[in-house]
Amino acid sequence: MTTTTGSAQKIADEFVHAWTGRDVEKALSLLADDVVCEAPGGRIEGVDGYRGFLQPFVTMITSATVIDVLGDDTHAAAVYTTDTPLVPDFRGIDHFTVENGKITHIICVFDRLPMHLARNA
Amino acid sequence: MTTTTGSAQKIADEFVHAWTGRDVEKALSLLADDVVCEAPGGRIEGVDGYRGFLQPFVTMITSATVIDVLGDDTHAAAVYTTDTPLVPDFRGIDHFTVENGKITHIICVFDRLPMHLARNA
Repeated sequence: MTTTTGSAQKIADEFVHAWTGRDVEKALSLLADDVVCEAPGGRIEGVDGYRGFLQPFVTMITSATVIDVLGDDTHAAAVYTTDTPLVPDFRGIDHFTVENGKITHIICVFDRLPMHLARNA
Repeated sequence: MTTTTGSAQKIADEFVHAWTGRDVEKALSLLADDVVCEAPGGRIEGVDGYRGFLQPFVTMITSATVIDVLGDDTHAAAVYTTDTPLVPDFRGIDHFTVENGKITHIICVFDRLPMHLARNA
C-alpha cells in the first residue's frame, strides 16, 4: 500500500509481518537489546520484556492482517488488525524508531477497553 | 522528524497540527464530506459526525504534542500525545487515506481504558 522504502519502513514491515504470522522469535530478532516500548499498560524494557508482552498476545490470535506500513529511514508506523476469541477486529498501530538496523523504541497504541470488558463479563 | 513529503503526509501533518492546536474547523476542512472514521467506539461518518467526535475531546485538552507524521502520497500516520485533566500523556495514532486532497478514511487508535477507569473512579 505504501511507496516509501526507507530502511525503518522495511524493518517495521518485517517486524509486523513476523509477529502477525506468529513468528515471535523472528520479530524479536529485529529489536535492539535495550529496546524500550511505551505500551498502553506502561513501559516495557529489553527483548525479554517485550517477549513477555508479545508472546501471550500472539498465542491468542486466530487471524491477523497488516493494513499498512509507512515510514522513512529512521521511523515507521505499522497498522494491523487481529482477531482473538475475546475481541474480533482488534486494531492497533505501532510507531518505531530504528537505529543501526534495529528497532530501539516502540510507541504501541491499542484499546484495552474491549479486553477489559470481555474479561469482566 | 520524517523526511517523506508525500501529499497525504502533508495533509495529515496539517490535520493533526490543526486539532492539537485546538483549531477544529481547520482540521475538519481537510476531511472529505463522506469521510469514514473507524474509531475505538465504532464507525463515525461524515464531517458533522467527526465534529461530534473531535470537538468534545479537543475541549478537554490542556496540552498536546505531535510526535511524528509519516506517509506518502496516498496514506499517512500521525502519532500524538495529549494531556487532559482525567488522563495525562494520552497517546494516539491515526492512519489516514487521502484522495483528491481530502482525508477520506481514518483508522483512529487510542486506549479507552484510562478514561473509562477515571470516569468510574
